[in-house]
Amino acid sequence: MEQQVSHDLLKRIDSPGDLRELPVSLLPEVCSELRDMIIDELSRNPGHLGSNLGSIELTVAVHYVFNTPYDRIVWDVGHQAYSHKILTGRRDRFCTNRKLNGLCPFPSPAESEYDTFTCGHASNSISAALGMAVAAAGKGEDDRHVVAVIGDGSMSGGLAFEGLNNVSSIPNNLLIILNDNNMAIDRSVGGMKQYLLNLHTSEGYNRFRNLLSRKLYNWGVLNEERRKSLIRFNNSLKSMLMQQQNIFEGLNIRYFGIVDGHDVGALVRVLKEIKDMKGPKLLHVHTRKGKGYGPAEESATVWHAPGLFDKETGERIVKDTEGQPPLFQEVFGNTLLELARQNDKIVGVTPAMPTGCSMNILMKEMPGRAFDVGIAEGHAVTFSGGMAKEGLLPFCNIYSSFMQRAYDNVIHDVAIQKLNVVLCLDRAGLVGEDGPTHHGVFDLAYLRPVPNLTIASPYDEHELRKLMYTAQLPGKGPFVIRYPKGRGVLVDWECPLEKIEVGRGRKMKDGTDLAVITLGPVGNDAARALARAEQDTGLSVAHYDLRFLKPLDQDMLHEIGRNFKRIVTVEDGVLMGGMGSAVLEFMSDNGYAPNVKRLGIPDCFVQHGTVQELRKICGIDETGIYNAIIQMLDQ
Amino acid sequence: MEQQVSHDLLKRIDSPGDLRELPVSLLPEVCSELRDMIIDELSRNPGHLGSNLGSIELTVAVHYVFNTPYDRIVWDVGHQAYSHKILTGRRDRFCTNRKLNGLCPFPSPAESEYDTFTCGHASNSISAALGMAVAAAGKGEDDRHVVAVIGDGSMSGGLAFEGLNNVSSIPNNLLIILNDNNMAIDRSVGGMKQYLLNLHTSEGYNRFRNLLSRKLYNWGVLNEERRKSLIRFNNSLKSMLMQQQNIFEGLNIRYFGIVDGHDVGALVRVLKEIKDMKGPKLLHVHTRKGKGYGPAEESATVWHAPGLFDKETGERIVKDTEGQPPLFQEVFGNTLLELARQNDKIVGVTPAMPTGCSMNILMKEMPGRAFDVGIAEGHAVTFSGGMAKEGLLPFCNIYSSFMQRAYDNVIHDVAIQKLNVVLCLDRAGLVGEDGPTHHGVFDLAYLRPVPNLTIASPYDEHELRKLMYTAQLPGKGPFVIRYPKGRGVLVDWECPLEKIEVGRGRKMKDGTDLAVITLGPVGNDAARALARAEQDTGLSVAHYDLRFLKPLDQDMLHEIGRNFKRIVTVEDGVLMGGMGSAVLEFMSDNGYAPNVKRLGIPDCFVQHGTVQELRKICGIDETGIYNAIIQMLDQ
Repeated sequence: MEQQVSHDLLKRIDSPGDLRELPVSLLPEVCSELRDMIIDELSRNPGHLGSNLGSIELTVAVHYVFNTPYDRIVWDVGHQAYSHKILTGRRDRFCTNRKLNGLCPFPSPAESEYDTFTCGHASNSISAALGMAVAAAGKGEDDRHVVAVIGDGSMSGGLAFEGLNNVSSIPNNLLIILNDNNMAIDRSVGGMKQYLLNLHTSEGYNRFRNLLSRKLYNWGVLNEERRKSLIRFNNSLKSMLMQQQNIFEGLNIRYFGIVDGHDVGALVRVLKEIKDMKGPKLLHVHTRKGKGYGPAEESATVWHAPGLFDKETGERIVKDTEGQPPLFQEVFGNTLLELARQNDKIVGVTPAMPTGCSMNILMKEMPGRAFDVGIAEGHAVTFSGGMAKEGLLPFCNIYSSFMQRAYDNVIHDVAIQKLNVVLCLDRAGLVGEDGPTHHGVFDLAYLRPVPNLTIASPYDEHELRKLMYTAQLPGKGPFVIRYPKGRGVLVDWECPLEKIEVGRGRKMKDGTDLAVITLGPVGNDAARALARAEQDTGLSVAHYDLRFLKPLDQDMLHEIGRNFKRIVTVEDGVLMGGMGSAVLEFMSDNGYAPNVKRLGIPDCFVQHGTVQELRKICGIDETGIYNAIIQMLDQ
Repeated sequence: MEQQVSHDLLKRIDSPGDLRELPVSLLPEVCSELRDMIIDELSRNPGHLGSNLGSIELTVAVHYVFNTPYDRIVWDVGHQAYSHKILTGRRDRFCTNRKLNGLCPFPSPAESEYDTFTCGHASNSISAALGMAVAAAGKGEDDRHVVAVIGDGSMSGGLAFEGLNNVSSIPNNLLIILNDNNMAIDRSVGGMKQYLLNLHTSEGYNRFRNLLSRKLYNWGVLNEERRKSLIRFNNSLKSMLMQQQNIFEGLNIRYFGIVDGHDVGALVRVLKEIKDMKGPKLLHVHTRKGKGYGPAEESATVWHAPGLFDKETGERIVKDTEGQPPLFQEVFGNTLLELARQNDKIVGVTPAMPTGCSMNILMKEMPGRAFDVGIAEGHAVTFSGGMAKEGLLPFCNIYSSFMQRAYDNVIHDVAIQKLNVVLCLDRAGLVGEDGPTHHGVFDLAYLRPVPNLTIASPYDEHELRKLMYTAQLPGKGPFVIRYPKGRGVLVDWECPLEKIEVGRGRKMKDGTDLAVITLGPVGNDAARALARAEQDTGLSVAHYDLRFLKPLDQDMLHEIGRNFKRIVTVEDGVLMGGMGSAVLEFMSDNGYAPNVKRLGIPDCFVQHGTVQELRKICGIDETGIYNAIIQMLDQ
């Protein structure tokens, strides 16, 4: 049924070298084939559609003009790099994108020499590319070009600014391409976004800039006398016109733009013009998310990563979820609104993920009480700290792997002051297809040593709701709630909101021969595993849901320490320093010496695949837990 | 002998309310008394001199104009807040500054209601103050002013930019005061610094801006016809003149300045003029580090924290260190230069601490191979990653507590890619007088779970040199070397550079009754403690220097596990998830069940005091270790 495009040109492009042999006139056709291939593949194998449709012409132009891989292209967030993959020898494997053992979800240096740097987290491209450019200069490879391609969404991240701020301090010829579509996943926010938008809407701003000084001459303003008159104000018109008027030029980076990012010919022309200019420079390119595919252009947030869809009709293929448990995200979003209705101190803070974490539910009903701060995790936490200091109660929702960027803010701006900030770590544990940069597996280990934190993880949706309710009660201090991506286990999730005693776990099931201690939803898998193990061995296995990593439930752990010689701990996080470690510390400190088998994420970066595949690999799926229990019972 | 100033005015100021009752004409005298008191006290009780001398007039003006504590002043880095302390009821306790149980080194909300937010780490003030301003607006407290006072050095931090970028997105009346002295501890660096400097040097920039549009009228440029001609360029002159020409105004923050930060009358006037203006605004104030004290003005870096000095002669009282071991910092700096001479791939990277970490030694001899990137820890690590990707070998030196700000960069931009970056964590462990924000006690716990890292800590200066030598050998991957502030233990530190086998610890001493496992220089205290314990008990205690937290020396730990039922671990870091935990994990995973006593930093934020006082409190001084050994031997 599919309308097949032949991909005649793409078939001949096995590397950018092949691309560079084509005449410029054929590049639009290459783009067209790329667009078709991406839409076609993604309709069957879900991925990031919108941003990749927006970057096609830019990618073709960059590989056409620059001598990759000798020249280095650093992508900022791999969301925009599908065309790059297809053009750099991975066309035929593109159908394996994001699958276990298939192509990596984002460019990965381990996969291809064209992938110069890890780019799962936003805003790192300028710093990394500057390092490469400085290294090239230092090694005398002056002919090597280094290009950072960064989206406007990523520009709000402090790291991008730190990079920009350093670009002019060191001799280098870095080219920064600002791929500006006025979007992150949701709309971009902040002064910079507004600034860039002003540059757009003023359209002729740059033409104006160039023409103004000519006009001033024409008008006779800049004759000698008047020039001197100007200089008497202790500044020169030139410096004002040429330097002070643009943020980037203010930072000593030459600014070029705005170029239409879907005019591949224009992009090629401009890139050729500026590529050999000395010194750091920035090219501002305007693109459109979802470009060339109607539905994706119309609704960019939905089509950022739309899942399966019918490419002909433009309908997303939404699985029938009737009768399925809700997403943890939906429970979070709805419960936050429910709590916010009751407690007028509650506000929401999200760094650029209102849709992803479902804070858009609060935002819709109470726009003044939910803050999307853009990609700026550190600010999100410190800003929350400031509000908490004045008596508000921020629920700051950040994906677990991105919370790594706000670690100092958690310690310095929240924990030291014991501020009432509820840190909601979404996407905790293995996240699946987004791979090693996105797994939220370090959080338990890096947050546990921070004094004054309460750290909890819900067993199911009811527990999530109750933890959220508990966290907003007076005087709870900084409160971390960690929960995974995806569906919970309870279809009927709307339980009453009740208080949970902080630091109190739950005995889920009695037993005598072995104790299983779990934290978070992985406890459900453990429950099934231990039921099977009991059935198969006739032995009796207890199950404890620790619920709080911090403070530990001392009573419960004493009970376990006294009664069990065999313990299995299960967590969806790293083994080093995690929950199992906390159990070992407790047992050692209190003179118990049980035999403990800890299950969790081993000491490696887990690759991409489905969550279920990855949990199996790590031995924390039902079978893995079952096997560990059986092995312990055999001892 | 001291030339005593009477402090007549200060004696009458027990709170800012008293200050506000004085006429403006007396404020210069208040400043003069403050200056004298700070110089006098700091000559006897060391502290941060230069920055505090620079901020006196600004502090007086702010407390004079604003209704503190109802109005909120958020200091960015407490380096500038001594006058603030003296004016806010802590004058008579100022002599206890930085001492155990004395005044906190930086403003601390736990100490005074005038201290609105923790401010040990740079760049957080805008985000925190914005949170406060938004909360004030949300609570209907529209008359509450919120002021962030931030140094130009702090402006290079990404967090400050994230704050600036968000300031205009939310209705608020925040005032940001940019205390610009063109310095962090060393000179400020980066495009922003250059930008601010341009504003200075152009002096009349702002006058110019205002006058230009008037002049254009005078010159007749802006008659109707010409106005239309301009508009035809699709932009208005107004938007260009009024908005595009200043970075802050580009971000929609009203900009005022530059004001002489040592003219207290002018400051009061300007602050009164702008305090009630609606919307976010920034006042640019120019100050001088060390202002009013000749030696400190002349050599700002040295006098940032000069230690004891003779206030009359201006001579620093440098203790006779002849015959003492060198600072670890000196060993680092000299060894880095030595290695850089041998290995032309080596470069140095420091975020604003070239003097503090002694990278200035390399910088002086090889300026092209050492990069001070300003206060920008995240960038420092990612930039190092970029250079490493191209074959250079960066030694990136960051204070341990500041590395918390680059955690994601370590994971995402270095560890995943196994890049050859040597991360040197200076100021690891308890740092003393700088207190809870500066102790480098979390590093072992938060870095241990990161795959691909090698993590080592030297027992002494020789080990530091050998670890640095080892780290730069080919293919070592990311390599963390953690060492403390202050002096080592070996006077004769210049040993030959030799390779250490990665993951290999050292048996320092045989023994049979108990094993002490240590990591880092604290091992020296343990060695003395166990010698005493042996003497006192007649029992035999073994000592192992683990040396590598990662990878663990499996052979050594098996030896310990097989031979000892009693183990004491000692580390200068948090107990939760740290080295002792790693030992517990190893023992548990390998079926050993020794009795383990772990010594380290407990689960609280350790306050300020001398390192020795704090180590005693935490039980990791010689006596604490001795007691633990004795207790274990008694069991």
